[in-house]
Amino acid sequence: MTTTVLLLTPDPAQSAALAAVVQAAAPELTLLTDHRALDDAQLAAIDVVLGWRLPPGLAGRLTRLRWVCSMAAGVEKLLVPDLAPGVPMSRVVDPEQALGISQYVALMCLRHARTLPLYEAQQMERRWTRHPLPAARHRIGMLGWGEVGRAAAAPLQALGFEVAPWRRDSGALHALLGRCQIVVIALPLTPETSGLLDAAAFAAMPRGAYLINVARGGHIVETDLIAAVQSGHLAGAALDVQQHEPLPADDPLWGVPGITITPHIAAQPSHETVARQFVAGLRCLQAGRPLPNAVDRGRGY
Amino acid sequence: MTTTVLLLTPDPAQSAALAAVVQAAAPELTLLTDHRALDDAQLAAIDVVLGWRLPPGLAGRLTRLRWVCSMAAGVEKLLVPDLAPGVPMSRVVDPEQALGISQYVALMCLRHARTLPLYEAQQMERRWTRHPLPAARHRIGMLGWGEVGRAAAAPLQALGFEVAPWRRDSGALHALLGRCQIVVIALPLTPETSGLLDAAAFAAMPRGAYLINVARGGHIVETDLIAAVQSGHLAGAALDVQQHEPLPADDPLWGVPGITITPHIAAQPSHETVARQFVAGLRCLQAGRPLPNAVDRGRGY
Ligand SMILES: NC(=O)c1ccc[n+]([C@@H]2O[C@H](COP(=O)([O-])OP(=O)(O)OC[C@H]3O[C@@H](n4cnc5c(N)ncnc54)[C@H](OP(=O)(O)O)[C@@H]3O)[C@@H](O)[C@H]2O)c1
Ligand SMILES: NC(=O)c1ccc[n+]([C@@H]2O[C@H](COP(=O)([O-])OP(=O)(O)OC[C@H]3O[C@@H](n4cnc5c(N)ncnc54)[C@H](OP(=O)(O)O)[C@@H]3O)[C@@H](O)[C@H]2O)c1
Repeated sequence: MTTTVLLLTPDPAQSAALAAVVQAAAPELTLLTDHRALDDAQLAAIDVVLGWRLPPGLAGRLTRLRWVCSMAAGVEKLLVPDLAPGVPMSRVVDPEQALGISQYVALMCLRHARTLPLYEAQQMERRWTRHPLPAARHRIGMLGWGEVGRAAAAPLQALGFEVAPWRRDSGALHALLGRCQIVVIALPLTPETSGLLDAAAFAAMPRGAYLINVARGGHIVETDLIAAVQSGHLAGAALDVQQHEPLPADDPLWGVPGITITPHIAAQPSHETVARQFVAGLRCLQAGRPLPNAVDRGRGY
Repeated sequence: MTTTVLLLTPDPAQSAALAAVVQAAAPELTLLTDHRALDDAQLAAIDVVLGWRLPPGLAGRLTRLRWVCSMAAGVEKLLVPDLAPGVPMSRVVDPEQALGISQYVALMCLRHARTLPLYEAQQMERRWTRHPLPAARHRIGMLGWGEVGRAAAAPLQALGFEVAPWRRDSGALHALLGRCQIVVIALPLTPETSGLLDAAAFAAMPRGAYLINVARGGHIVETDLIAAVQSGHLAGAALDVQQHEPLPADDPLWGVPGITITPHIAAQPSHETVARQFVAGLRCLQAGRPLPNAVDRGRGY
């Protein structure tokens, strides 16, 4: 009996490319890529979903589903209400992605700590003027101490920064924020962490502090962030993720001096890693062994 | 018998501040800060110079000189022809400075490798468009494998870059340049390394390569660099040092797209470190022990 897998990727070109790599790694699988073309009987024959998001209404029709494998590190778009309670979920954990994020975080920390925008502005005016180093060794608050947070911390420490982790049992968030010149968000998006960085959190940060978000836009109350930067309390922010992606041209985030917007490019998953880890997970499922990188659906990550 | 020390710092305000810190660390010293105010007899009473540069004609008049201590890592401006052959030279080696340089190098490597200027330009147009990572893991050629080169390499490796060192016995420079996407200059300025990065060196680098200079402007033939960037062969350069510092407003380096100019800020020496290491060296001199961080005057570093 064959295993039937539904791929749910952000766009069709990606689906075809990923399907080819998965098929090469596990030739016996039946792969489906366009769920809109499938009728109820075909949906009811699907054993496994490999994807990053379950569209509304789909999960309830996948009556034989035995496993959801997230190709993204964040699973919040797969935790839909109509997904049957017993279906296990796991995720791909890609060291290359964690490295990509750590590069992005180090870049934005250094750019802020070493006041690169100030020197770029001086170059525009052909002005060669030195300024004292603002603070040789910033303390960086790392919100989230999972794969991403830990991977980002190591190079920061090699660069002389002190990294202060915040995790579930670390105690009051605002106390930590108050001690950090830079704050990095590396949390999963869950009901508990949604909107965590709001006006009160920004007020707890010291004047001139800087925010870096490589997790999800939903962690930040964006109107509060804009107000905190425009008031001069925060120096700025580097946002690789936003609540609305792609960020619409009329979004006010684009035009706030001090806020840098990048289009979710901190990490780029590779099809090879996704396929390799998916097939490894499948072999565990088939052998009745525990799934690697299992997600706690109740906790949300 | 007291020891008389002449301080030769870039500006008078700095001299006074440094003199205070040195005096506190070694109260018995006689410190002189303004050599222009001294007559021949006073100059002939000087035992030690602590500075970064010997002005023309001065060294020949320091007939009792027993030691030159460089407060900068680079000693090329102290190696003047009229300095008596037997006078030993050493330099301050400051781990904080090496850390500052390693931050600067990592910043400029990441900014280039992660195409930050491209995303900054897109933000100006409110355009949220992803581009594939150009190459996840650049190979970085590190020219010079001393205090600076080694300190800069460690965080680069933690960030997933491959670092290829070049030192005296590494063989042909152009062969190494041909294998690197980024080249960092961390060499001392000597007759052998002056003008090392010229048109032929840039031609040996692969198309799209990037240059970072944290050593001395004299390593680079600046007109050749401008030509290599303007032709599109090199992607650009980050120059913390230039042949003429402060860089005059009419210097063509300022206006080349892709070339970033910073005003020699990669590292900032601390008076405390200079004073501590100077006094430690003085105690060695007084006890007849070998000087720490001795400079080979013949070699030039
Ligand atoms: N920008 C990008 O391209 C990109 C790429 C990959 C991932 N991401 C984002 O990064 C997020 C984190 O990924 P990961 O792989 O590091 O996840 P992970 O390994 O599951 O780690 C999650 C961490 O967050 C902590 N945490 C969760 N809820 C918390 C709460 N309520 N209070 C305090 N700490 C809490 C966990 O603490 P405990 O250990 O105490 O449970 C754990 O340390 C993902 O969910 C995704 O959204 C973004
Ligand atoms: N931008 C700033 O703020 C700043 C701050 C500090 C220093 N610097 C500059 O950085 C330079 C390097 O400092 P450092 O402390 O690293 O010096 P260092 O410890 O003396 O190391 C010098 C290195 O250069 C190599 N080298 C010298 N001549 C060479 C040649 N002809 N061919 C190949 N390799 C050669 C040496 O190789 P071997 O080991 O084989 O001899 C050694 O690895 C300083 O001279 C200074 O100009 C700039």
